[in-house]
Amino acid sequence: MKLKGQSVLSISQFERADIDNIFRVADDMEPYAQRQKRTRVLEGAILGNMFFEASTRTRISFGSAFNLLGGDVRETVGLELSALAKGESLHDTARVLSGFSDIICMRHPKSGSVAEFAKSSRVPLINGGDGSNEHPSQALLDLYTIEKELKASGRKIDGLRIAMVGDLKHGRTVHSLSKLLMLYKNISVQLVSPKDLSMPKDIVEEMKSNGLSVIESEKIESSISHVDIVYSTRIQEERFTNKDEADLYRGKFRLNQAVYTAHCEPNTVIMHPMPRDSRKEANELDKDLDDNPNLAIFRQTDNGLLVRMALFAMILDVVHLVKKSSSDVPWHNHR
Amino acid sequence: MKLKGQSVLSISQFERADIDNIFRVADDMEPYAQRQKRTRVLEGAILGNMFFEASTRTRISFGSAFNLLGGDVRETVGLELSALAKGESLHDTARVLSGFSDIICMRHPKSGSVAEFAKSSRVPLINGGDGSNEHPSQALLDLYTIEKELKASGRKIDGLRIAMVGDLKHGRTVHSLSKLLMLYKNISVQLVSPKDLSMPKDIVEEMKSNGLSVIESEKIESSISHVDIVYSTRIQEERFTNKDEADLYRGKFRLNQAVYTAHCEPNTVIMHPMPRDSRKEANELDKDLDDNPNLAIFRQTDNGLLVRMALFAMILDVVHLVKKSSSDVPWHNHR
Amino acid sequence: MKLKGQSVLSISQFERADIDNIFRVADDMEPYAQRQKRTRVLEGAILGNMFFEASTRTRISFGSAFNLLGGDVRETVGLELSALAKGESLHDTARVLSGFSDIICMRHPKSGSVAEFAKSSRVPLINGGDGSNEHPSQALLDLYTIEKELKASGRKIDGLRIAMVGDLKHGRTVHSLSKLLMLYKNISVQLVSPKDLSMPKDIVEEMKSNGLSVIESEKIESSISHVDIVYSTRIQEERFTNKDEADLYRGKFRLNQAVYTAHCEPNTVIMHPMPRDSRKEANELDKDLDDNPNLAIFRQTDNGLLVRMALFAMILDVVHLVKKSSSDVPWHNHR
Repeated sequence: MKLKGQSVLSISQFERADIDNIFRVADDMEPYAQRQKRTRVLEGAILGNMFFEASTRTRISFGSAFNLLGGDVRETVGLELSALAKGESLHDTARVLSGFSDIICMRHPKSGSVAEFAKSSRVPLINGGDGSNEHPSQALLDLYTIEKELKASGRKIDGLRIAMVGDLKHGRTVHSLSKLLMLYKNISVQLVSPKDLSMPKDIVEEMKSNGLSVIESEKIESSISHVDIVYSTRIQEERFTNKDEADLYRGKFRLNQAVYTAHCEPNTVIMHPMPRDSRKEANELDKDLDDNPNLAIFRQTDNGLLVRMALFAMILDVVHLVKKSSSDVPWHNHR
Repeated sequence: MKLKGQSVLSISQFERADIDNIFRVADDMEPYAQRQKRTRVLEGAILGNMFFEASTRTRISFGSAFNLLGGDVRETVGLELSALAKGESLHDTARVLSGFSDIICMRHPKSGSVAEFAKSSRVPLINGGDGSNEHPSQALLDLYTIEKELKASGRKIDGLRIAMVGDLKHGRTVHSLSKLLMLYKNISVQLVSPKDLSMPKDIVEEMKSNGLSVIESEKIESSISHVDIVYSTRIQEERFTNKDEADLYRGKFRLNQAVYTAHCEPNTVIMHPMPRDSRKEANELDKDLDDNPNLAIFRQTDNGLLVRMALFAMILDVVHLVKKSSSDVPWHNHR
Repeated sequence: MKLKGQSVLSISQFERADIDNIFRVADDMEPYAQRQKRTRVLEGAILGNMFFEASTRTRISFGSAFNLLGGDVRETVGLELSALAKGESLHDTARVLSGFSDIICMRHPKSGSVAEFAKSSRVPLINGGDGSNEHPSQALLDLYTIEKELKASGRKIDGLRIAMVGDLKHGRTVHSLSKLLMLYKNISVQLVSPKDLSMPKDIVEEMKSNGLSVIESEKIESSISHVDIVYSTRIQEERFTNKDEADLYRGKFRLNQAVYTAHCEPNTVIMHPMPRDSRKEANELDKDLDDNPNLAIFRQTDNGLLVRMALFAMILDVVHLVKKSSSDVPWHNHR
């Protein structure tokens, strides 16, 4: 149980066996997340859910995961940056706040800040996103979703064919997922983006040198036709240096049911890091995919709960106690 | 138990028998709210208290009601509208957040938004106020308070004489209360407001066609002289189209102890949806009524806790289990 | 147990025996705060953590202290002043919110507001800071820290030699601490500040008339050379009326390891109310003191948790029940 007492700061700290361990614990969390059972294993434990930058979804996901294990949550949201605003160092904030909880989740706009905080913290930390740097639980939930979706058709992560579509330059999630995939075998990756927003060269090179088959392209149609997963992200047109080019690409990376039907193999799974922009001008996943059973975006966020429960249980070393402290759920379960 | 697994979106979904059921469960919640007993019936359950618009009082009331039943609360407040601000649809937000809790309370500035959210939610929802549209738990606590106050003198809601005073045009609470009263017999209603702020015609007509006796007036004195309840709301002078008229009415709808003594029957009950504006220029209920035992405004908010506990217990179907999981309160009770 | 059912509004309500009681209960809370044991004595109790002004550190400290005793926390943060902003009186807010919890902690920017709130509250209140007026739990944790640090070398608060350094004019914490020290014997106090920021005359006179030895000075070196405690606060240069004087004093009240080594007795304890400004231009405690084992600033915030747990347990009268409801901590303890 390598995670016992450890902080989770970056995906680069994991080996393949670690990830497998996390995913098997996540599997075991499903009955609790689905409310078939409840557990009070962390009753009395306190999570310091320190979101120095707003993120409703991720904050609530971490908090609920801790509640599902029986623990309490103390919380801060971005707008109340009082002490840090008064010139307090991350060292001081970490020393103080780590006296108030058993484990801390932290999001912060500044890259590297969570690792700096961890150095002075007296309790383990989970990085909930530090600027453009890392968001390891998101990368884990993405890979866990891929594993689960493939399992339904008897496949494994080894041998995965995936297309990543959209803004591959700025997307923290596709960077992290790419790095995680380097731990697996026979992976082929289609990178689909406008030139201006292509995957950073160093990541592409690292993937290739780790044995991944990588093809870069600017056309979505051919790139998504022989893959298991389409991982879509938003193209932010305001990021283009060349506005003419932006016009050229407008709508070309957008996935809707018509494009899906025309080009994808049956049961190709659609993923997205969320939130999905659902305004008319949005350039990512259309609403008409909502009835497509292969749209896995809400299974992704559900899986996030399982992965975060697994991280908490492993870091606080209570995995073996979860079952012992479980009981029936007395209230009406609506799922 | 008709509410099991159901969302509470509008008062129009209730029949008289439903309301009676809710009120009898609310009665049973009193020992827990008063701390004569504690119950842990919802231990491990999670409320998603999603306030996309600020409202300290209502938010804390819902949260405390859930805590009083033993459950945990994950929360968001208006200012952190991150994902919605990035163009996420209510559909997506609902699908995601409903994976993180067993039940959701939601307030949102946009009329109709809570019902839209409910369509995509995988858990039941309570509407905590959607713009100028509905706020069903407020209407229920108002009616529950009326029932309780009348009961003290051996009367029932049937036969009620009520005056509604102030801004009857914009007041969501008086609209909802009017609709609820249509379920009862022999109700007579005095509507007291400036012409510019009178009760919408359709509601008046609906009341009349449902057999209520309705008298509209612009003078408070005669209207409050033969009623059981005076329900006061704030006159917002800034809403007048005709500023001369505003001057004409200044202070005329304000209730204070002198007016009460001069015009009301003994034990006429005073209600208000709160918050009450206590600044000098305010035009509603004076502070000198605070010593009047018939001022029921704080009993109203206390009753809100009971009604919300009842809704949670009925929706999650644990009413029959509350007593079984009850125990003594070991700490000093100050009430 | 004098605190049972009482509000804690000001340090002036305490006698020496009361403080001793609080500190002995705080001692007993250490195994729970350190996670050697957990207790559920307040399971089902609700703290209303009403911070009408932002303060992450103090808010989380109160909330965690209540969680550590097994209770739940409902909370508001400064930015959501909805009802008060609509003209609601503190009386009304207090009456309403006190129906939703068993005890309230309140911070508010306005001096005197917490005492006013307490008059209308139906449950006990702890003042979490009301403007420049009072912050009694901070004063108690400061004195508790002094007692604990001295105890390590076999001494007591009686006989204490302390230097208070920095902005003694505006510092709420040094004012409160000075008042608390008047309850003890043979106290000698060095007050070190620029003239413009000296301790208010009335407090100095009160200390002297209570038998304290008080020496005022503008030089840090000689003042800290024969003391047990250096209590440092930030000099806010922007507060000087005379900008030339500000330049004159620049850096002169700053404590770093070199100054400490040159002038302090061995094991002189360094305290600070936090947060400490760690920016270059800051004028208080240097980072190079972080390796000095006598820097007690983080032990101070840890002690704050113990003192707040003690206050909760005494007010709610469960001190005698804490041990009975204690059990082992099943999760990995990282401290």
